[in-house]
Amino acid sequence: MWLFGAYGGLATTVVLGARAIARGLAQPQGIVTETDLGRGLPLAPIDSLVFGGHEMRSGDWAKSAREIHADNGTLPLPLIEALAKDLKQLSKNVRPGALVNAGATIERVTGGRRGAQRTLRQEADRLQADLRAFQQKHKLDRVVCVNLTSTEPDLPASPAHRTLTAFEKAIDKNDSRVVRSSSLYAYAAAKLGFPFVHFTPSNGALLPAIRELFEQNGAPYAGMDGKTGETLVKSALAPMFKIRDLRVLSWQGYNILGDRDGAVLADSDNKQAKIATKDALLPQILGYPLHSHVGIDYVPSLHDHKTAWDFVHFEGFLGHRMSMQFVWQGCDAILAAPLVLDLVRWCDLASQLGEKGGMKHLACYFKKPIEASTHDLHAQWRELVDYANAHRDKFRR
Amino acid sequence: MWLFGAYGGLATTVVLGARAIARGLAQPQGIVTETDLGRGLPLAPIDSLVFGGHEMRSGDWAKSAREIHADNGTLPLPLIEALAKDLKQLSKNVRPGALVNAGATIERVTGGRRGAQRTLRQEADRLQADLRAFQQKHKLDRVVCVNLTSTEPDLPASPAHRTLTAFEKAIDKNDSRVVRSSSLYAYAAAKLGFPFVHFTPSNGALLPAIRELFEQNGAPYAGMDGKTGETLVKSALAPMFKIRDLRVLSWQGYNILGDRDGAVLADSDNKQAKIATKDALLPQILGYPLHSHVGIDYVPSLHDHKTAWDFVHFEGFLGHRMSMQFVWQGCDAILAAPLVLDLVRWCDLASQLGEKGGMKHLACYFKKPIEASTHDLHAQWRELVDYANAHRDKFRR
Amino acid sequence: MWLFGAYGGLATTVVLGARAIARGLAQPQGIVTETDLGRGLPLAPIDSLVFGGHEMRSGDWAKSAREIHADNGTLPLPLIEALAKDLKQLSKNVRPGALVNAGATIERVTGGRRGAQRTLRQEADRLQADLRAFQQKHKLDRVVCVNLTSTEPDLPASPAHRTLTAFEKAIDKNDSRVVRSSSLYAYAAAKLGFPFVHFTPSNGALLPAIRELFEQNGAPYAGMDGKTGETLVKSALAPMFKIRDLRVLSWQGYNILGDRDGAVLADSDNKQAKIATKDALLPQILGYPLHSHVGIDYVPSLHDHKTAWDFVHFEGFLGHRMSMQFVWQGCDAILAAPLVLDLVRWCDLASQLGEKGGMKHLACYFKKPIEASTHDLHAQWRELVDYANAHRDKFRR
Amino acid sequence: MWLFGAYGGLATTVVLGARAIARGLAQPQGIVTETDLGRGLPLAPIDSLVFGGHEMRSGDWAKSAREIHADNGTLPLPLIEALAKDLKQLSKNVRPGALVNAGATIERVTGGRRGAQRTLRQEADRLQADLRAFQQKHKLDRVVCVNLTSTEPDLPASPAHRTLTAFEKAIDKNDSRVVRSSSLYAYAAAKLGFPFVHFTPSNGALLPAIRELFEQNGAPYAGMDGKTGETLVKSALAPMFKIRDLRVLSWQGYNILGDRDGAVLADSDNKQAKIATKDALLPQILGYPLHSHVGIDYVPSLHDHKTAWDFVHFEGFLGHRMSMQFVWQGCDAILAAPLVLDLVRWCDLASQLGEKGGMKHLACYFKKPIEASTHDLHAQWRELVDYANAHRDKFRR
Repeated sequence: MWLFGAYGGLATTVVLGARAIARGLAQPQGIVTETDLGRGLPLAPIDSLVFGGHEMRSGDWAKSAREIHADNGTLPLPLIEALAKDLKQLSKNVRPGALVNAGATIERVTGGRRGAQRTLRQEADRLQADLRAFQQKHKLDRVVCVNLTSTEPDLPASPAHRTLTAFEKAIDKNDSRVVRSSSLYAYAAAKLGFPFVHFTPSNGALLPAIRELFEQNGAPYAGMDGKTGETLVKSALAPMFKIRDLRVLSWQGYNILGDRDGAVLADSDNKQAKIATKDALLPQILGYPLHSHVGIDYVPSLHDHKTAWDFVHFEGFLGHRMSMQFVWQGCDAILAAPLVLDLVRWCDLASQLGEKGGMKHLACYFKKPIEASTHDLHAQWRELVDYANAHRDKFRR
Repeated sequence: MWLFGAYGGLATTVVLGARAIARGLAQPQGIVTETDLGRGLPLAPIDSLVFGGHEMRSGDWAKSAREIHADNGTLPLPLIEALAKDLKQLSKNVRPGALVNAGATIERVTGGRRGAQRTLRQEADRLQADLRAFQQKHKLDRVVCVNLTSTEPDLPASPAHRTLTAFEKAIDKNDSRVVRSSSLYAYAAAKLGFPFVHFTPSNGALLPAIRELFEQNGAPYAGMDGKTGETLVKSALAPMFKIRDLRVLSWQGYNILGDRDGAVLADSDNKQAKIATKDALLPQILGYPLHSHVGIDYVPSLHDHKTAWDFVHFEGFLGHRMSMQFVWQGCDAILAAPLVLDLVRWCDLASQLGEKGGMKHLACYFKKPIEASTHDLHAQWRELVDYANAHRDKFRR
Repeated sequence: MWLFGAYGGLATTVVLGARAIARGLAQPQGIVTETDLGRGLPLAPIDSLVFGGHEMRSGDWAKSAREIHADNGTLPLPLIEALAKDLKQLSKNVRPGALVNAGATIERVTGGRRGAQRTLRQEADRLQADLRAFQQKHKLDRVVCVNLTSTEPDLPASPAHRTLTAFEKAIDKNDSRVVRSSSLYAYAAAKLGFPFVHFTPSNGALLPAIRELFEQNGAPYAGMDGKTGETLVKSALAPMFKIRDLRVLSWQGYNILGDRDGAVLADSDNKQAKIATKDALLPQILGYPLHSHVGIDYVPSLHDHKTAWDFVHFEGFLGHRMSMQFVWQGCDAILAAPLVLDLVRWCDLASQLGEKGGMKHLACYFKKPIEASTHDLHAQWRELVDYANAHRDKFRR
Repeated sequence: MWLFGAYGGLATTVVLGARAIARGLAQPQGIVTETDLGRGLPLAPIDSLVFGGHEMRSGDWAKSAREIHADNGTLPLPLIEALAKDLKQLSKNVRPGALVNAGATIERVTGGRRGAQRTLRQEADRLQADLRAFQQKHKLDRVVCVNLTSTEPDLPASPAHRTLTAFEKAIDKNDSRVVRSSSLYAYAAAKLGFPFVHFTPSNGALLPAIRELFEQNGAPYAGMDGKTGETLVKSALAPMFKIRDLRVLSWQGYNILGDRDGAVLADSDNKQAKIATKDALLPQILGYPLHSHVGIDYVPSLHDHKTAWDFVHFEGFLGHRMSMQFVWQGCDAILAAPLVLDLVRWCDLASQLGEKGGMKHLACYFKKPIEASTHDLHAQWRELVDYANAHRDKFRR
């Protein structure tokens, strides 16, 4: 398992959590592939997972975990201490990340710059070399890659994105205007035929050109933007209004959060990408246009304890208006980490089974699911259950 | 359509609303059978429905509608005035109700008593005669009966409930301890082979003995306890926690409401029946026992503007605890009225199709669905959609 | 009583409400001068008040009241009908308003333009003539003027605002860049020595030049921006955190509303003026700077049923972090109308007593009180109580 | 400082926190006497405080602090470790508590019984001896005693409570029906002329007989029931409704909490005492009777993270109904600990100054303030500020 953005809050939680479960120090709560759903499927055991990654900032996983404890109170200190040796050891697998055209805010937050004066092609080659070295060192069948880097500003559409040929030409011409870090990461995975999970909304990763390369090299990919908090609740709740033919007049959502994520999203360019994926699902589920709004504001004192207030105004029988509100108080990294572990296992399974391209049955994990037909969480879940059942039957025979 | 509890807030809203739609003065918002789901099915047109009912209190539907306007602000005055003539006319179909062993609170609230010194058998015969007279007067194919009377205290189990023979013997012996008003109402419908919708949680209506009579006379029934507010949201939301393997530690729900309903539920005997149906669904959906609580308190100033606060405490990855709250502010009669119209149309359709007994595909309408396998709203909805699709295909051919 | 913005939701509610109370059709709920506080003071009786005003749009108070009923459900229809004759009669006192440099949004919403090609001086004269004619027609001792027009974009500071001489020169030179409608309204009142209540945050009304004129002509004024909803709660609640030495880390406030007010505030220029007055009070009450935010979003379906969610994050003993949230659901016109009536009565009383200039004891009514020392609602209230007690003692003697 | 209920969550937080501040490891956040209010007054320095107490359960303060960390996440582990030596040392001052007629739930929760077969008189003598030994060991001017034991069931009124003579006769006659543990604790303090802070709602402590003894021995006392959460907010917010003449129709409050406190309050006898003190303040502040409700439910998973939802339904101008809700999420021990330290310092000051009897100026600290004229938090605060100012002036001279 290879994490782009390795020392971020989410990646650190994934690694710490997986090792805690592997060593019997924590229950696999939140990992759906560990419930009945995963029974009878040849999923990679949690304790068999090996971790590496790319990261702009220096540090190690133990240090990052202690920072998270200090800020959030999540990741209990005794657990960090018990796993400190594992974390230090695994941190040797972390290599310097790439920073290409990522926008001023991310450059500031990561404290990073693309250091050396490498060309895009050199950078692309370096990333692939890192991945190959990791695979060889640990003698792995495959490396599932996961993008967990901060949300980038939207990458403007370009003809260079349309075909693999055009994209590779742009890389060779060192045209950094049409490429972002996430493009290079996804390109590296695709080039090596490794499964790829795109867990953020950055639109630079799964460009048509790169999808073409995944198809060509026979690797599956899944994305995009993990569905963890307010959007998860929305996609669980909106179908209720349809089932009761209650007409939603307005759905206002306000998210407040601190943390590096919040700081990045406070930049309006980066926020725009996020909001676009959060805002599309209501008309699709409900079947009509409506007044809706998604706000994201940076509240430093909250750190990763994200809070969201949603207000739903709706009309029922005889035009009577009523309302529903909810408040969600969750810790994003805690909510997302088990999803990452699930996705890695599903993609690994798909790879074993020779499946390639966009994994539609993983739609329930994402705010902006690839090629999916619905945002309704329950319908998405049914698709995953059907997929698991079908394969389970296959393995049983 | 025959309404037991004819002048209550819900029944009045049903009648006023149906007439408003019939006369083109309101949209059929909230009536799911009027959406795509009902397309292509021989459902009774809203403007073909004729109304009658039993009621303990004196009055008429126009008067009751004006009271609701004064208390709640729902049911717009101009609409009431525009339909006053219809309402007065229909009120001629309302006959005196039966009050048997209903508990002190209901007796106080309805201001009623079983007036005459009639025996149970005389009372049962009278109810049936009223229904038959209504059918003949309006030359109806069938009369769909709906129980909308106040929640009764739980009727203790008795051998007299087990078989039709035993039950009829108890009626003949005038043993009022084993019978409540709702039993007589359901018995009347079953005796005449009329479809029956049990919209309240009273356990006296669908006794095994009475179900036997419905089967015997070939009539469908549906129930019980309309799912309109907090429980609706619960059944829509709880599956999300399962889908994410988030362990719910506690689910506390507090309902506050005024109105006749609230006053009846303030009586702890009546409340118990209600809470029992509201509280069962979480362990079924989630698959494990948990700490949960449902409170109902009477707040006169709210009238029918029910407000509910639910607090959900749950545990995720690495045992981290998070929470979700929701506040539901809805008007129960407004939410329930279109469900009643839907249920009447589905039961009428079932009757046309020769279906009898408990209608499992209507589970999504009820807090305590009869013979249903799940409380998950979305799974229940899929069953209804499958049913509608299957019949639509049949009628298309 | 003269209302600038006469047919707006608030002014209409004021007039309808005052007449309803005068005719014994409603209780004076919300009017503090009608409670013990006003006892023993020579306050103008509600039924002695006569109404007129300036308004850009055509119509009358009965029509406006019916629109409010249709949109909001406030202002009961039977009450409007019972007072229709009064309202029609009073509407004869309404004269065309002035629209000067009000910004594109207000021009669109009022559907208005400054019609005739009048100069600022001609317009100023016309407004004064209207006020004088009203006074004479009804043989009034004085006319208390109230500004209830929509929030204007901030008027940039100009040397013409500093002194009366400079200001009048600008009027004479017809320099409309340094003047807004609210300036002309306040100027008209000051010129005639009439008390003036500035109920909105527009900064063009109480310019230093105009305050000079009020002082010169011996008239009192009060302002600015009525404190009715979220800010009221803030100013009531923030002192609690100080009293317990709980350090507020972040105070996020989100307001959603529809209505003409909401539409005007959706324009970011107009919103800015509003937010500035809402955001200043926390550091003043708490005594330290903090992270705070006030959002205002336009949600058409809510009309005047404003909803606000505030999230307060605070730190207590041993640095432990806790939170408080509140949701306020109020109807702004309903909340503000009695404040307007109170303010008019207090200003009329001040005028009787020969008080002039900014009325500091009325701070509790305003988001941005003039020359006041505190935003703490309870301290402001004490000042009003002290004022009333002092004068009551005087009149008793 | 002597703590009855020494190893409870609150007492442990007090001791740990005071030592953390004394050693410069924490800021005195929440301690009002450490703000400007306490400036210039001869208050006992935090680092001069010495701790002892009575406790039914075995253990020590370090152990209790680690338990709180495990349950609640409050009381940071590194802080506990840094102070472990202090805590162990101080724990030597803790003596076995008395358990008299405390009700079945407290007996179960404390795991305790009044062990030895001592008479009430022997027990009273023993408690006094413990206090005197502590005073002598540490050479203290005085020992301020604080009752922090669990809320007891209401003690029925008895003639034995009316006079000191009658009360001492009952002790001598060993009549345990008219005495609870809290009575013996308060009696011990009064007997020795030590100041006494009654921080819980138990009605057995400040009986008229015992107040008589405090007066006689010249010692001050303060109480009762620390105002920390929902009630604090209520008393801060209710005055706003009065200031705006908004008529509160209903005020519903629901508290959910886990912890030993929650378990004790889940017992309906103990809850009754608590609710009585929480429910009285609204009519007093608002000036009229209203529909109100205070619920307390035990939710084990919350531990000491208490959550309260309050719903306020109110009526404004023209009878229009609106609402406000708040959600309070606080940790009771964290909120209460600085109040205990404040109260001890105020009582110590009062003792220095020769003040005796009920301390009315400390009303703002209590849900049920002794002999206080108002529940309005802001008015209570003003009284404390006036007191501090008056004494500061005195010491300045």
